[in-house]
Amino acid sequence: MNNRPIGIFDSGVGGLTVLKEVEKILPFEDIVYFGDTARVPYGNKSKATIIKFSRESANFLKQRKVKMIIVACNTSSALALDNLKKSYSIPILGVIGAGVEKAIEVTTNKKIAVIGTKSTISSGNYQKLIVGKDKAIKVYSRSCPLFVPLVEEGILSGEIVEAVIEKYLKDLRDRGVDTVILGCTHYPLLKSQISSYFKSAVVINSAKEVANQVKSILESRKMLNRGKRKSKVEFYLSDQPEDFVKLAKLFLKRTISNPRIANV
Amino acid sequence: MNNRPIGIFDSGVGGLTVLKEVEKILPFEDIVYFGDTARVPYGNKSKATIIKFSRESANFLKQRKVKMIIVACNTSSALALDNLKKSYSIPILGVIGAGVEKAIEVTTNKKIAVIGTKSTISSGNYQKLIVGKDKAIKVYSRSCPLFVPLVEEGILSGEIVEAVIEKYLKDLRDRGVDTVILGCTHYPLLKSQISSYFKSAVVINSAKEVANQVKSILESRKMLNRGKRKSKVEFYLSDQPEDFVKLAKLFLKRTISNPRIANV
Repeated sequence: MNNRPIGIFDSGVGGLTVLKEVEKILPFEDIVYFGDTARVPYGNKSKATIIKFSRESANFLKQRKVKMIIVACNTSSALALDNLKKSYSIPILGVIGAGVEKAIEVTTNKKIAVIGTKSTISSGNYQKLIVGKDKAIKVYSRSCPLFVPLVEEGILSGEIVEAVIEKYLKDLRDRGVDTVILGCTHYPLLKSQISSYFKSAVVINSAKEVANQVKSILESRKMLNRGKRKSKVEFYLSDQPEDFVKLAKLFLKRTISNPRIANV
Repeated sequence: MNNRPIGIFDSGVGGLTVLKEVEKILPFEDIVYFGDTARVPYGNKSKATIIKFSRESANFLKQRKVKMIIVACNTSSALALDNLKKSYSIPILGVIGAGVEKAIEVTTNKKIAVIGTKSTISSGNYQKLIVGKDKAIKVYSRSCPLFVPLVEEGILSGEIVEAVIEKYLKDLRDRGVDTVILGCTHYPLLKSQISSYFKSAVVINSAKEVANQVKSILESRKMLNRGKRKSKVEFYLSDQPEDFVKLAKLFLKRTISNPRIANV
């Protein structure tokens, strides 16, 4: 057993979709969440910059004595995970692998769509991972840069969302994909709109799949917190907490304790 | 006379609307442009963070031996200009004052709208400046966080833009404003759409007004470049140039020389 907290980092608020799923299935685990809100978003920045920022975030969590790190940002997972894994001895988990495994499991016509930020999509990581596991699968990908600002504006349905979804996803729907991976931690908040648009396709929330992976890793390594008290979640940000607290309510459906500012 | 370059900085690409206007009326001035693309956007970050980033950008330009600095970012102008002015002996010009002067000059019904990023609007700087000059003026302000991502996606007209404009600007139109200040350097790219929406109101592009101010400052201080060769413009960024080069074409209607990476 290991009672140290789980560390989660993201460029900002998006990783809260992962935190939410982890809390749900691991209610006795303490969590330290770090959001790099001074430099958000990562999604349209270069690999070198994303690696630099991700390392600083991971180092901060390491100082908080976490027992594992979840890279709850698809962009960091796509571009910095390999680099991070080389630097730490504790388990480090990205959000891409879990979504990919689930997608391969559920697709029947072997046509999978992946949507995410510019950097995630242009990294080609989702595509490589999927085809590496099953060459017969066709992967169609699309970056959707307006989805994050829409979510952060709290615009989750209505005319604007429908027009933006049509603009970004029409091609993918026309291809007849039967599985859609939400390759950005903000996108689960648009899941029901995206699901209605695709009608019969299965839409995969990677956050949920990652939480399952976290549980099985902690179990197999005997690292679960065996305490039975309600877990403690600490929030640290690299910039102001106001917007974050408001958005956290949207993401978590509860009020969070005031985040602290951390200089990374 | 002074043949050193003019320095312009912005959080990213938006300041190019200012560069464009400066080039137009000062064709013999060399320019050094710095875009803080590693940390863009500034518009939803805290005052302390914006001051820190702005000082680093200004210091970089100072090292390039510029003769004046234009803070071509409304967020920095609203939150960091006073701080910067205290630190340098060369002229430092923000983008807010010029737009405000023009607006006061053109309004007849004394109802002015200001639109910009969250940080610019919540700083209240436009509002204070306008009312400080004429107490009888009513200022209506609105942050429009989706405008920047729309511009950066190259979505400048059509159904989505119209729906977003309606969402953000309906209240202001209903108030009967006769003058609208575009308080963000990205917004001039949506100027014709915003103008059509407001019908009879005058829409002010601060970039143009700032360029006029730059010219008169250089003239009055005898700091103009008296050379008659075509000016040289150098671009420096804190992150990858790919997207920037593509966007620069949209903003400047020409291809730019490859930007260099600068660590600030």
